[in-house]
Amino acid sequence: MAKVITPRSEDYSRWYTDVITQSGMADYSPVKGCMVIRPLGYALWEGVQRELDARFKETGHENAYFPLFIPESYLHREAQHVEGFAPECAVVTHGGGKELEEKLVVRPTSETIIYAMYSKWIRSYRDLPLLLNQWANVVRWEMRTRLFLRTTEFLWQEGHTAHATEVEAEEEALRILDVYRRFAEDCMAIPVYHGLKTESEKFAGALRTYCIEALMQDGKALQAGTSHNLGQNFAKAFEVKYQTREGDWAYVWQTSWGVSTRLIGALVMAHGDDNGLNLPPRLAPVQAVIVPIWKTDEEKSRIAEAAALAAEELKGLVRVKADLRDEVSPGWKYNEWELKGVPLRLEIGPKDLAKNQMMAVRRLDRRKIAVPRGGLASRVSELLEEIQRDMLEKGRAFLRDQTRDAGDYESFRKAIEEQGGFYRAWWCGSPECEKRIKDETKATVRCIPMAGNREEGRCLICGAPSGAWVYLARAY
Amino acid sequence: MAKVITPRSEDYSRWYTDVITQSGMADYSPVKGCMVIRPLGYALWEGVQRELDARFKETGHENAYFPLFIPESYLHREAQHVEGFAPECAVVTHGGGKELEEKLVVRPTSETIIYAMYSKWIRSYRDLPLLLNQWANVVRWEMRTRLFLRTTEFLWQEGHTAHATEVEAEEEALRILDVYRRFAEDCMAIPVYHGLKTESEKFAGALRTYCIEALMQDGKALQAGTSHNLGQNFAKAFEVKYQTREGDWAYVWQTSWGVSTRLIGALVMAHGDDNGLNLPPRLAPVQAVIVPIWKTDEEKSRIAEAAALAAEELKGLVRVKADLRDEVSPGWKYNEWELKGVPLRLEIGPKDLAKNQMMAVRRLDRRKIAVPRGGLASRVSELLEEIQRDMLEKGRAFLRDQTRDAGDYESFRKAIEEQGGFYRAWWCGSPECEKRIKDETKATVRCIPMAGNREEGRCLICGAPSGAWVYLARAY
Repeated sequence: MAKVITPRSEDYSRWYTDVITQSGMADYSPVKGCMVIRPLGYALWEGVQRELDARFKETGHENAYFPLFIPESYLHREAQHVEGFAPECAVVTHGGGKELEEKLVVRPTSETIIYAMYSKWIRSYRDLPLLLNQWANVVRWEMRTRLFLRTTEFLWQEGHTAHATEVEAEEEALRILDVYRRFAEDCMAIPVYHGLKTESEKFAGALRTYCIEALMQDGKALQAGTSHNLGQNFAKAFEVKYQTREGDWAYVWQTSWGVSTRLIGALVMAHGDDNGLNLPPRLAPVQAVIVPIWKTDEEKSRIAEAAALAAEELKGLVRVKADLRDEVSPGWKYNEWELKGVPLRLEIGPKDLAKNQMMAVRRLDRRKIAVPRGGLASRVSELLEEIQRDMLEKGRAFLRDQTRDAGDYESFRKAIEEQGGFYRAWWCGSPECEKRIKDETKATVRCIPMAGNREEGRCLICGAPSGAWVYLARAY
Repeated sequence: MAKVITPRSEDYSRWYTDVITQSGMADYSPVKGCMVIRPLGYALWEGVQRELDARFKETGHENAYFPLFIPESYLHREAQHVEGFAPECAVVTHGGGKELEEKLVVRPTSETIIYAMYSKWIRSYRDLPLLLNQWANVVRWEMRTRLFLRTTEFLWQEGHTAHATEVEAEEEALRILDVYRRFAEDCMAIPVYHGLKTESEKFAGALRTYCIEALMQDGKALQAGTSHNLGQNFAKAFEVKYQTREGDWAYVWQTSWGVSTRLIGALVMAHGDDNGLNLPPRLAPVQAVIVPIWKTDEEKSRIAEAAALAAEELKGLVRVKADLRDEVSPGWKYNEWELKGVPLRLEIGPKDLAKNQMMAVRRLDRRKIAVPRGGLASRVSELLEEIQRDMLEKGRAFLRDQTRDAGDYESFRKAIEEQGGFYRAWWCGSPECEKRIKDETKATVRCIPMAGNREEGRCLICGAPSGAWVYLARAY
């Protein structure tokens, strides 16, 4: 299996697909727009689930599961919501051999079906806050799909909360945004900008949408998570009311928030290189691979034994694999494990054995570090933590370097065409100026930062006074 | 919230529904046949996933994820399979606002879509065995539904493996049957019979179906897991071929196997009582609840502090919760936690504090055990293990007592009508005798045991010589 990955410089888009299909992360399926997530890709998603689920539970959320199907009429109850999602729906018209009385849509997101239940469950202020999350598949009909980034069916989590007050709902939306931001940085080693979406980019039915935005190596932004303050829009549409401590009836205040398997695509594009994947240790299904090097049969038995022993010692502290295959060469193994993005390779040959050491090689930069055999497990753990830190630092430097002031409109147009990246720009807030930027440059307002955004300037387009600057970028 | 559970003696079916809805495990949804799994029910499913997933991985399986939708034509490629499943399918006819060229069915099970991929991935004997599993939702249109036991949409895992030889596939099918049996006994504390399904009860498309069968308190059997040896049926339908070591092309041998959220229904019916749920410690989301008892404010502050300290000490070793609410009485708390099935209650009042102890009460039998405050965590862990063992022993005794020899046909008809249970009976193997039993007694052949089944007798119905005895029961 001679695998050839298209270099990034030649065709970034083909490089992305090559890395995913050849590393065994995913494959195309015979169902249009749907992908198959293979074991390596799914193990990464399990890592995302493990880390995020723990954070959701720490912040008081519980998991539940709601139906895949939504009666078509439910979608219509919130006017903006149906406008946003109806065109993307898959529709079930027949079940059990009969035509259905009411069509069912396959959930594109679950606000409507979940809040129909909330209106039944919530009666009193004592029932609040209600903090639920579900891990589920959703379907949004897509014409142009890309593995992980945009597929008709995808996996995600969607949190749905109900609160007694507007303040609590806003706090929740921002708390989750913070959970997402820290997860992206601490686990995925991907630094992000966070802020508010514009009116035209917000979730269909939300009051406000907050988001985190990452930058891929090709200079395009990728929305990596969103958290919506829904206000009382859905509460009113679904009659989600509670009796206050004083005995009055009031509508609840709600939030919803989600991240999806698109994060796996972000991992590929943020860290990968022309040799393949490059996974941050916290999420890597295999963190270290041991590759023995032998020439003679006598060497083989001694070294294979040493490799197996080292693996045994590392187990428990490190997700490790010893590659003892005989039919392929060490070089072949190096290539394969680099393709699969394993963060650390541990080589052991006759010389290492004599020196009672192993040779560690970082996937990130192929730096070699001799590791004494004594205290192997703690040293390997340290090396993995260093790699995790270095990947985040590298990402931070990249994001800093690729974020520029827009300057005047003509300079911005030229710059974004030539090199992509994020641009800080003043914007007056009008949909007209936003639309012109999008039409003329293919860039969109990725977010309006919330912190340190008080200086005043003039709109990049119309020159009107502006109270806020924004991040502009072309995006996935 | 005065919750009243219908006693089992009055109406077993209503008791079941009451326990599930009132404990907060699940609720009916507005979508016909679909349920909502609430946090307590979902946490139990997470326990099932945690335990089974570890066992699948230990036996060499990896997780993956395949599309929700299956092109209708795929279902038709295996003749028995389409006959079994087509009548139960939900069908998507429209997507993205347009009528689809080919209808898509929502997966009722994934053999067809998965083996279409296997035919692409498997090329050589080196690619075998291929051992994948997926955790997913499936849809089978049901007319008469019951929470957890039979719902249009349900959650499950489905394993799909491909092997080079018939022997390996058979070993795999039996290995998984053993995983299921041990899981049912060790984690769910539900003893089961295991064996082979008859031709009329086997999976549509399988060569042989193995199963585990449990007995519920009302004397009805419940199929708790199935493992299918698919032979080469699907391999031939989907052209899943590999090149042998000798260079020839051969069809693979396959298995598939699954358990579903129906197991949660089994937990309710196997262990619950008129006070509610009764959960085995290994799967209980909360294993021990601490209930403080105070009268005066002075007592309250000391006892609440002691309860919180004990919870802190137990954390890490035990899934514990301290119920420090002030607005409800200890008695009210007892009822609520019994309803939710928490295996162990730890009471602490002024006298206990004086004696430096806590009073443990087992949900299983309300037996009280004084636990010295020193060494609390290890003693509570022991008590939980004892409860787990005692629940399994109780289940074993029940299964033994409720399994009888059928005797002659008239005695059997009378006995199964009066008391349910499992009946050992000789069966000649003919579909006619099997059908007559079913038509006349509503009992079915639950399984043909594989071990110790060598004696010879005469068929319960026709008196013809029989080489095998079977378990008969009415079933869910």
